[in-house]
Amino acid sequence: MDNKDSARINQLKNVLKRLGLEDDRSIRWDLMNLALTHPSYSPVNNYQQLEFLGDAVIRLVSAEFLLEEYPQTNVGQFTAIRSILVSDKTLAYWAEAFGLEQFLLMSGQSAKDVIGRTSRLAEMFEAILGALYLSTNDMSLIRPWLDSLLKDKSTEILLDPALENYKDALQEWSQLNYKCLPEYKVEEISSQQGDPERFIAQVWLNGEILGHGKGQSKKGSQQAAAKDAFLKINNNGSSP
Amino acid sequence: MDNKDSARINQLKNVLKRLGLEDDRSIRWDLMNLALTHPSYSPVNNYQQLEFLGDAVIRLVSAEFLLEEYPQTNVGQFTAIRSILVSDKTLAYWAEAFGLEQFLLMSGQSAKDVIGRTSRLAEMFEAILGALYLSTNDMSLIRPWLDSLLKDKSTEILLDPALENYKDALQEWSQLNYKCLPEYKVEEISSQQGDPERFIAQVWLNGEILGHGKGQSKKGSQQAAAKDAFLKINNNGSSP
Repeated sequence: MDNKDSARINQLKNVLKRLGLEDDRSIRWDLMNLALTHPSYSPVNNYQQLEFLGDAVIRLVSAEFLLEEYPQTNVGQFTAIRSILVSDKTLAYWAEAFGLEQFLLMSGQSAKDVIGRTSRLAEMFEAILGALYLSTNDMSLIRPWLDSLLKDKSTEILLDPALENYKDALQEWSQLNYKCLPEYKVEEISSQQGDPERFIAQVWLNGEILGHGKGQSKKGSQQAAAKDAFLKINNNGSSP
Repeated sequence: MDNKDSARINQLKNVLKRLGLEDDRSIRWDLMNLALTHPSYSPVNNYQQLEFLGDAVIRLVSAEFLLEEYPQTNVGQFTAIRSILVSDKTLAYWAEAFGLEQFLLMSGQSAKDVIGRTSRLAEMFEAILGALYLSTNDMSLIRPWLDSLLKDKSTEILLDPALENYKDALQEWSQLNYKCLPEYKVEEISSQQGDPERFIAQVWLNGEILGHGKGQSKKGSQQAAAKDAFLKINNNGSSP
């Protein structure tokens, strides 16, 4: 560990306590310290490698959880739900809920970077997952506390998918399956403000129309088209 | 297992033998059977869920391997190497090397789909990784045989990165880090065939130029621009 002072040890203990892991002897403290060190604090010994690993950990643990919890759900829907579970927005929300930011070593300049805060929190969260995974080479230090978060979030998504962003989910799905992005074509068919059918949108992928939507704003019509595409994908398994 | 006849059991044993796992008692045969069943054979009991999981398994095991094997390598380069390791092309190559296709249950129509063959082989390979991961909830059935493949492929990439496709690697990297795709602008500056500087290309991401390249073909100039972008990314860690 770079910083061996007892204040840092106490910080790391505090983080582990918040995750319900304070008594675990298998935890690699050197890795936990790295996971909570921003590149602005140390250009060499920081969370980047663990974040790279943790990005795959959260994908795998989410997939495991979804398969166990919703065995009847089709793969198209899994892909959509996982894209939300592993998004920066969700990971940053969890990091925030545990109050982890105060334990991140970083330069004062970086701390002032408000725009980069969501990414920073998400990266730190992924790095912690990476450190915990490498401590035991399995998910035994992760699932005991992460499962309830995955459960709450996936229940929320399934109960009201409209809470979430279909465009983001469709983009993730198309990148994963087709290595390209959906495109939207929007037409204004009425100039009356507030008309729920003022705009119509089509979403295209690889020269094919995936879905149609209407809305009183451009963005609303795109979201509706993305939702339409989503329902079709979910009905057909993993292909549109 | 859907298909309990002894011929199928022998097929699965044969697959496990090829992976050096024939004596392992922890293997879940029901999952191995699913992993080797194409959706055209059974619309419900097929490899799709395991493939969804296995996609995350190969990402995680590749990250683990790279961190252990090349601890001094920067994260930008890791991302590039991993994108090649987890690509359909690589996974299909490995499935082919083990001669696995003959054990995949599928409709005769699907077997004739030559264009979809690479995806099919890659999906089957991911599904097998998913089945082996779920058998023990760790990588203990995977790393003993996969590590040498990861080692050979990563050595090949590091020795001669030009063997590989920089455009694909850059695309994977930009999707992962920026959720959008690089764009190429190509200009013909000489009409002389064979002129190594006939085309010049720029590669853009989010309104910024990542790299420049020249070539005697459009594609060559794009690859050169992608390579230029790559070297810059590798020198700067994970940001361009």
